[in-house]
Amino acid sequence: MKADLKQIQAPISSEMVEFEKKFRDFMKSKVKLLDHITNYIVRRKGKQMRPMFVFLTAGVCGGIQESTYRGAALIELLHTATLVHDDVVDDANYRRGFFSVNALWKNKIAVLVGDYLLSRGLLLSVDHGEFELLRIVSHAVREMSEGELLQIAKARKLDITEEVYYTIIRQKTASLIASCCAVGASTTGASEEVIERMRLFGEKVGMAFQIKDDLFDYGEDEIGKPLGIDIKEKKMTLPLIYALNHASWLEKKKIIYLIRNKNEDKKAVNQVIDFVKKSGGMDYATQVMNTYLEEALDLLKEFPESEYKTSLEALVRYTIERKK
Amino acid sequence: MKADLKQIQAPISSEMVEFEKKFRDFMKSKVKLLDHITNYIVRRKGKQMRPMFVFLTAGVCGGIQESTYRGAALIELLHTATLVHDDVVDDANYRRGFFSVNALWKNKIAVLVGDYLLSRGLLLSVDHGEFELLRIVSHAVREMSEGELLQIAKARKLDITEEVYYTIIRQKTASLIASCCAVGASTTGASEEVIERMRLFGEKVGMAFQIKDDLFDYGEDEIGKPLGIDIKEKKMTLPLIYALNHASWLEKKKIIYLIRNKNEDKKAVNQVIDFVKKSGGMDYATQVMNTYLEEALDLLKEFPESEYKTSLEALVRYTIERKK
Repeated sequence: MKADLKQIQAPISSEMVEFEKKFRDFMKSKVKLLDHITNYIVRRKGKQMRPMFVFLTAGVCGGIQESTYRGAALIELLHTATLVHDDVVDDANYRRGFFSVNALWKNKIAVLVGDYLLSRGLLLSVDHGEFELLRIVSHAVREMSEGELLQIAKARKLDITEEVYYTIIRQKTASLIASCCAVGASTTGASEEVIERMRLFGEKVGMAFQIKDDLFDYGEDEIGKPLGIDIKEKKMTLPLIYALNHASWLEKKKIIYLIRNKNEDKKAVNQVIDFVKKSGGMDYATQVMNTYLEEALDLLKEFPESEYKTSLEALVRYTIERKK
Repeated sequence: MKADLKQIQAPISSEMVEFEKKFRDFMKSKVKLLDHITNYIVRRKGKQMRPMFVFLTAGVCGGIQESTYRGAALIELLHTATLVHDDVVDDANYRRGFFSVNALWKNKIAVLVGDYLLSRGLLLSVDHGEFELLRIVSHAVREMSEGELLQIAKARKLDITEEVYYTIIRQKTASLIASCCAVGASTTGASEEVIERMRLFGEKVGMAFQIKDDLFDYGEDEIGKPLGIDIKEKKMTLPLIYALNHASWLEKKKIIYLIRNKNEDKKAVNQVIDFVKKSGGMDYATQVMNTYLEEALDLLKEFPESEYKTSLEALVRYTIERKK
């Protein structure tokens, strides 16, 4: 079944509207500057995939509760905090090592706003005695920061293994979707076993999601983000890692030379992309992605059929069929 | 009674040694890069005032427990996270708006390490089901980030009131010491009333501490941090706020002109300092500081005498008698 996000949202559409209203309330502060910034953040909101995972898993596990809203808000506050913290560096990259005083203010503010949003999320759970939510989300914060740091530590080592690649994407990407699903289940009062199954389900979806994202860089669909950005940044992802592992010694040496020394050269980057395509790197990554997807869907089989389950399955497929 | 930090530490000296060992363990990670950084952080540790407040208040409230160590570690992890996040900007200021790629990496890493340390602290409490500690500390994170943002928002408005000044220092500085004392009390199983009294005690100590810090900038002791830094950064603190509020219209206009336009000029900065001294700004700030101090000590009166209490009183006096 192919579905667009609007169809997928159908069983939780009123909840999503209410959630958005509540989320705005949760972010309110006494400091005007902060309200300006959080209003700006709310306006540029994305596809709302994370709250959708929370509400749909809650639906599948027995029904959306009042605490499901807080769970979704906690995740969304955490995710927003991460995005704001990421801006610290993105802004910097854009400016190529050059900062205006204004940009410095923004940096300081970005760090503080991120910390503030995180604390608001925590307080939301603390004030309602929702210990399990705190446990799930604290783990996610740890995993995500550790995963990003692992990526930085390994970034320049071009001999990164498949194993390390999986560890990085599990920590930096999959852990958040895993948390969404565990939180959704947890807010329905589900058993530890069900919460764990939903966490694993979300983790597998997250793995597939990130592999899809990495495939975009090789221009799989010829739209989406510009080609070869990862190669330019010497970021080793699954298609390239596979291709290098299955290349001859000489070919490997040549490709590594190109990535190390010619990564700013469009022609060399295209050579690397061609190499990956010819070596079957994209096919392999696609196959791994599909395996994660099927394993995720398998984990849903034990739950009774419902409109929530149908939508959740469609949402999972959407994550790998999306065009950007 | 005048005492140095070593004397003050005497009743909790073995606890402080054990704490340091445990704290190192709490910070350990699977990522080598992270361990390098946290080792570096541990080595440049300061006076350990925060753990001292936690252990001494626990001692005063009935005795140090196993959870007191976790409470102290939680606070210290949070404080370290804040310091690391602050480095994002300090580094930047030092470089006067110019960044190397290396500095950018460090920025990204600083944000991530801060987030990581915060999550470790949270997990420490989550894993032991210490809900009250989480409540206290989440409030502190919120207060501190809100306070810093309030300071940024008001920083360029030179007509800041005494009220706003107190709000800023209560949030950005006093809230952390307040948390130390509330956490210390909480880990002994004290009543809500006792926890709240200790929180208020810590808050008053923190207010006195920050006013002392702001007084240093006017060279009260002729040592410590360089003179006039706050004026150079157009940061309005109590001595100056008082002096401006008690100046003639003409004098006020002149001083504001100097701060706004001549803040980089050493002579002009000295003129502002002289103005503050002559207007009694420092005497007033000292008096307010002493009032907070006495109010703090008053709150301790209801607790039975003990070596912990004697040390805690000495620690409070130390915060305003320190030379830097």
